[in-house]
Amino acid sequence: MSCVFCKIIAGEIPSYKVYEDENTLAFLDINPVNPGHTLVVPKKHFANIEEAAEATLCQVIKTVKKVGLSLKKNLAVSGYNVAVNNDPVAGQAVPHLHFHVIPRLPGDNLEPWSHKKYQKNQAEEVLNKIKIV
Amino acid sequence: MSCVFCKIIAGEIPSYKVYEDENTLAFLDINPVNPGHTLVVPKKHFANIEEAAEATLCQVIKTVKKVGLSLKKNLAVSGYNVAVNNDPVAGQAVPHLHFHVIPRLPGDNLEPWSHKKYQKNQAEEVLNKIKIV
Repeated sequence: MSCVFCKIIAGEIPSYKVYEDENTLAFLDINPVNPGHTLVVPKKHFANIEEAAEATLCQVIKTVKKVGLSLKKNLAVSGYNVAVNNDPVAGQAVPHLHFHVIPRLPGDNLEPWSHKKYQKNQAEEVLNKIKIV
Repeated sequence: MSCVFCKIIAGEIPSYKVYEDENTLAFLDINPVNPGHTLVVPKKHFANIEEAAEATLCQVIKTVKKVGLSLKKNLAVSGYNVAVNNDPVAGQAVPHLHFHVIPRLPGDNLEPWSHKKYQKNQAEEVLNKIKIV
């Protein structure tokens, strides 16, 4: 077992556990974007969203909700980001599916993305490629 | 009904529909971070994750998986980001729960966050606040 999150789940590497149930674990990201930054993982190893069973995704998103509620209630934040970096090109550093839950503060200046405009007909072209029939 | 996403769901505002089922809708973000940037929403109006029923979150994450598979297969991308900006402080612009699914390309330089280190004992202090018992 070489996966660092599998080792955390197995207790071989210590972690700051925020929540645990039969199927999921939530623990502090040790290099937080903001204090309270929590990772939610399925206990079973899946590399990414496509590999994960639908039931697993449901279990994980329910735990994300629990964690978000705790961040709001207990850190007095008024919002948070949920993020999955799915695959290395998207910034995934550990190849075990994990949902980031990041408490946000006014003026913390975490502006993640720059938005663009579609060129003429570009949206239609993209849609024709990705539309799920 | 003033919610722009509710109007899109109702067909009062046109959208580029990527996927639709009984409970969810996926459509192109008209100001994409990258082409194919898709929003997945529950058809029923919920402002955020905390308001949404667990069953709704399961329906939405299943649609996110479908969209991600389509992006990978049909846009030949090797990964994507999934993100929820939950509440205005986190960058939520439309107060109807939506999951961004953003295809990623090598070298597109979308680096969303800067990570920090916890100070001594800070992780324990945060954990004691947010731990879900």
